[in-house]
Amino acid sequence: MDIAIINTKLLTFEGRGLGIINDGGLAIENGKITFVGKTTDFQYQSADHIIDGSNLLTMPGLINSHIHTSETLLRGAAQDLPESEWMNKGFGPFKKHLGIEGMVAGAQLGVLEGIRSGTTTFAEYETHVSSLVNNVYLPFKTRVVAIETINEMASDRVKLKPTDLYELDSELGKDPLKRADALFKDFQDHPLVTSMYGPQALDMVSEETLKIVQAKAKEKKCKIHMHIAQGNRERTQIEKRYGKGATTISILNDRNFLDENLVAAHIHDTTIEERELMVQKDVKMVGCPSSISCIDGILPPIGHYLKLGGTAAIGTDQAPGPGHHNLFLELKLASIGTKIISKDPTALPPWESIKLVTINGAKVLGLDQKIGSLKVGKNADVITLNLKKLNLVPVIDNPFHTIIPNLVYSTNGSEVNNVIINGDFIIKDNEFPSLNVEEITSDVSKKARLIFEAATDEWKEADSQMVKYYKKGFL
Amino acid sequence: MDIAIINTKLLTFEGRGLGIINDGGLAIENGKITFVGKTTDFQYQSADHIIDGSNLLTMPGLINSHIHTSETLLRGAAQDLPESEWMNKGFGPFKKHLGIEGMVAGAQLGVLEGIRSGTTTFAEYETHVSSLVNNVYLPFKTRVVAIETINEMASDRVKLKPTDLYELDSELGKDPLKRADALFKDFQDHPLVTSMYGPQALDMVSEETLKIVQAKAKEKKCKIHMHIAQGNRERTQIEKRYGKGATTISILNDRNFLDENLVAAHIHDTTIEERELMVQKDVKMVGCPSSISCIDGILPPIGHYLKLGGTAAIGTDQAPGPGHHNLFLELKLASIGTKIISKDPTALPPWESIKLVTINGAKVLGLDQKIGSLKVGKNADVITLNLKKLNLVPVIDNPFHTIIPNLVYSTNGSEVNNVIINGDFIIKDNEFPSLNVEEITSDVSKKARLIFEAATDEWKEADSQMVKYYKKGFL
Repeated sequence: MDIAIINTKLLTFEGRGLGIINDGGLAIENGKITFVGKTTDFQYQSADHIIDGSNLLTMPGLINSHIHTSETLLRGAAQDLPESEWMNKGFGPFKKHLGIEGMVAGAQLGVLEGIRSGTTTFAEYETHVSSLVNNVYLPFKTRVVAIETINEMASDRVKLKPTDLYELDSELGKDPLKRADALFKDFQDHPLVTSMYGPQALDMVSEETLKIVQAKAKEKKCKIHMHIAQGNRERTQIEKRYGKGATTISILNDRNFLDENLVAAHIHDTTIEERELMVQKDVKMVGCPSSISCIDGILPPIGHYLKLGGTAAIGTDQAPGPGHHNLFLELKLASIGTKIISKDPTALPPWESIKLVTINGAKVLGLDQKIGSLKVGKNADVITLNLKKLNLVPVIDNPFHTIIPNLVYSTNGSEVNNVIINGDFIIKDNEFPSLNVEEITSDVSKKARLIFEAATDEWKEADSQMVKYYKKGFL
Repeated sequence: MDIAIINTKLLTFEGRGLGIINDGGLAIENGKITFVGKTTDFQYQSADHIIDGSNLLTMPGLINSHIHTSETLLRGAAQDLPESEWMNKGFGPFKKHLGIEGMVAGAQLGVLEGIRSGTTTFAEYETHVSSLVNNVYLPFKTRVVAIETINEMASDRVKLKPTDLYELDSELGKDPLKRADALFKDFQDHPLVTSMYGPQALDMVSEETLKIVQAKAKEKKCKIHMHIAQGNRERTQIEKRYGKGATTISILNDRNFLDENLVAAHIHDTTIEERELMVQKDVKMVGCPSSISCIDGILPPIGHYLKLGGTAAIGTDQAPGPGHHNLFLELKLASIGTKIISKDPTALPPWESIKLVTINGAKVLGLDQKIGSLKVGKNADVITLNLKKLNLVPVIDNPFHTIIPNLVYSTNGSEVNNVIINGDFIIKDNEFPSLNVEEITSDVSKKARLIFEAATDEWKEADSQMVKYYKKGFL
């Protein structure tokens, strides 16, 4: 046995309710969970590492179901802007200077930050995603769902008016498609890597390429992960391209895209009827609470999708904007934000919302046979939280387990003190045993400074609302 | 000189914009700030403690403008309940067992948790508040605004129907009034203690006593802090007591209560016109984002009050419910939640929201001549944040200071590594140098367990929605 955690409070997501076990034990061997139960029934004495879990909560590692980690290098670059300015005048001037080297640096930072607050699986959505897999995820021994972005926009979006129809060129999809195909070949049966196709959005990919993606995904029995119904800009494009009254969902339904293998990110610009249809077709939803709130002033309809009976998960999307990749903070906003928009304090209670980042994340990504709960035979993606942190005291088990609400409402992510991915310690007792974080962050910071400097003139010329506030000394 | 912080990034809230100074220095002597400026202009060599601030942000300590810390002992006791059940069936059965000893234990926990995440001033609203001042705030050397609750409800609220008029007995206000008066006498000129009168709410105090409070506050030139316009229950009471169409604001206006010395907590059940009137009269507002969202499914109108030109601050209110007293998390919810309810990503930007917990908090509590910004002559309530935390990297200063948005959107409170109150280190390099936190939390936890156990039967009998979920294994 490699690792044994004893005398711990287990949150298993198996069996009755949430499957909470006090005085529990968990064994890990060869990357798999080999025991889950009471410590008294547990033969753990021969384990290489024995963790005394008396003051720990042990639970499945968190799953971030939609993220662009490379943009973490530009944390704080663009927020508090009108939606019409965010990409063109806010984020755009910085993003164009990122380059592959900057992307890798940003991913290093984003992945480390995510791990630090308990994330063990990242659904990474990126162009040239294999460069992040090879340079970040594999050296960091971290689980990744690699989604190659496919985008065929031939026009420079910065120069378009919101009403101009994007020009699409199906030639532009050929390289991304090749890269996506290569992912399946290169990482077939890799214990840490799963692959998906990522047509960016219905308004950014030609019908021709969408059909190819659909056929390939069927053949490979894999999922398609797509940004869907993101708002007015997309709505306008779809009507211009597919005719008056057409919506992303109506077109996808017509083309038989709505099924259990579609992962639909965002979906805030959908009608109730469209969501009902999606649920009926078992489309999986990912909502990104902070990101969409910061860009659009909209909380994604996660609570509504669950209420309709759908399967939903959450992601942190991007950092310049909401600023972080801490799933505990996202959980809080998902849960409390849903209460606010539904004017109902009982909406999205913690025993539902905590699943968004664990077993539901696994279901959305098609990984629920491997991860997302603590069960013998599953991959050992396990985190522990220090229950002695001042914000979690007291921990009460009678008459009920207060840790369940407190896990959603009172945590801040800093309670995570052990992170195990596929049986390896990535964080052990608050340290990264195999990574020189100091060196990485120092290097990352240098790269970021150069990019911000290179973008300065263009950012100022774009003259967004942020520039106006900057001139007043507020930024 | 007692303490010098050098080479630090200063967020002063003085001068142009937010008053950001890079490579700054700050001196503390005899509890006061004696230097704020560039390190190059700073003669710091003789200081007793020199902190190298190269990787630190130095800013004013945070101000929690409305809190009931004693209830922290019951963290996680009541949430995800209909508003009608929260007090009677959820929180009530536990709260009645709290007692003075439990209240002190809860306050110890709440104050430690608040300090740990950067709070240096607590506006403590409580019955027998001096027991918390004497047993918690003074031993912890922490700044407190002591507000004695005055409540004259003669009926057992638990037994009332929502439409029954509360019976008030002005005799019941006499003892609280005496205790409030004693606060002013006992803590006159105390460097850490300020006092206020706290008539709990217009529906819970007789007109006779309100008049007395008004006269006393005028005489003492102090503030009155009151829960105002908390929703349907209060609305019903006010109409029954003061006549059809009467509202809390209309009655308070009629009785000349609306002025610069009224601190109005919550106010979510007010009309736009009422808020405009309050702003015109310079009434100060305190909103508690997580608390009211968790109890009522409503985000307090903080953004709206600021937009009208009013002065607003925030508090964490109570822990059973939203679970924590971390002002950095409250800031995030205030800012992002305001974007969501106003459907506007530019609403309540960080350079406004960060003032809610600093200089605005000081203004609301009438302490802006003493605290809330970094200025020579002010009391030395100062915190530092570790800028090397993964969620704050990179820190960029050109073309603008990314720390401003990141301070609101990306922090989780665990970045705080030094807390200085009135010139004393309460946290120094992540440790509490003068407090045995381990012992306190262990003691607090024991007390909490006894109270939860004592309340078990009654809680189960009350049969709230939480009890129903508990029976299914979700809690």
